[in-house]
Amino acid sequence: MNASKIPDIIIGRLPIYLRALQGMAAQGMKTTSSQELGDHVGISAAQIRKDISQFGEFGKQGTGYSITFLMDKLREILKVNRTWDVAVIGVGDMGHALARYGGFGERGFRVVMLFDSDAAKIGEKIGEFVVEDVAQIVERVGACKIKVAMVAVPSASAQEVADKLVQAGVKAILNYAPTALNVPAGVHVQHIDPSTHLQRMTFYLE
Amino acid sequence: MNASKIPDIIIGRLPIYLRALQGMAAQGMKTTSSQELGDHVGISAAQIRKDISQFGEFGKQGTGYSITFLMDKLREILKVNRTWDVAVIGVGDMGHALARYGGFGERGFRVVMLFDSDAAKIGEKIGEFVVEDVAQIVERVGACKIKVAMVAVPSASAQEVADKLVQAGVKAILNYAPTALNVPAGVHVQHIDPSTHLQRMTFYLE
Repeated sequence: MNASKIPDIIIGRLPIYLRALQGMAAQGMKTTSSQELGDHVGISAAQIRKDISQFGEFGKQGTGYSITFLMDKLREILKVNRTWDVAVIGVGDMGHALARYGGFGERGFRVVMLFDSDAAKIGEKIGEFVVEDVAQIVERVGACKIKVAMVAVPSASAQEVADKLVQAGVKAILNYAPTALNVPAGVHVQHIDPSTHLQRMTFYLE
Repeated sequence: MNASKIPDIIIGRLPIYLRALQGMAAQGMKTTSSQELGDHVGISAAQIRKDISQFGEFGKQGTGYSITFLMDKLREILKVNRTWDVAVIGVGDMGHALARYGGFGERGFRVVMLFDSDAAKIGEKIGEFVVEDVAQIVERVGACKIKVAMVAVPSASAQEVADKLVQAGVKAILNYAPTALNVPAGVHVQHIDPSTHLQRMTFYLE
């Protein structure tokens, strides 16, 4: 498989398949079909077969997919057959929620470091971590070779924080600030912005 | 324009254009081009022109787009030239963050009602609202004709909550629980799940 040749839109669907498979496994299911998986995620069976076949032949004609086998393969492809350390920048309401979110562990991530610029928050203990000063990002994130960060600061500070993260060697930024970020090639940014999701739905409402 | 004929993938990009335009307007800019807008959002100028032209002729050859005019048009298309009342179900860390999030107002939404199933939380005041009992969802959400909801409950409760929301007449659900929801035709669901965004990026990391 040549990663660079696979459209990002396909890569974007693999975590959704993996999440659905984890849900099926949690219910005790052992096998599934592209039809059943498709019904779960709202994507056609043909699309699922086509997406998965980009990476190899993981199912059997007639018997479908072994859920644990396909989960293992998807984890391997998405590189979450390991645990990625994650830094959270900004511990307002959203940063707090991220720092305390229990769902990352089984998906390949763990929050290991928290930063804020507010003197009143620096030194605060959240879970097992102490909030550190954003001025330390380059040094601390760099020293720990952290590659993944979540940014939950106000829009006005987001670019400055992103610049520091890039300087520290971070390659993947999940941005909760409702603003675009400029990053160099080789650094990946994804946005989480509830308003864009809501607006995508109101389009269809009467 | 016939809404049913426009691919959802295009609809999904419009809120991203609108967010970028709002950022430009906040910086005092008056006009922009598809090239400049594209640089902001990481989408090609050709794609932006094509997407926007589905809805009409909003730019001028050579002079580009008036930012406020294009914002108005996008708000009209996405039906956020009004304010939608939103119910939040589940006031754990994430629900709290959503209830207190200040960014919805300028994007067409306002949280007006909070629900939880935890007796210790029912009656709690968050901002200007008192947390109500999930058992009241159908009655209260229905009576107020709320069409939009955000679900921030544990995965195990998400489907039950979604069923109540559908019964109450909700047509758009933003689901923060990392699980699929079954809803009838005509009800829209979007997911916010940080792990899927992170996994989409780790694919590209070394």
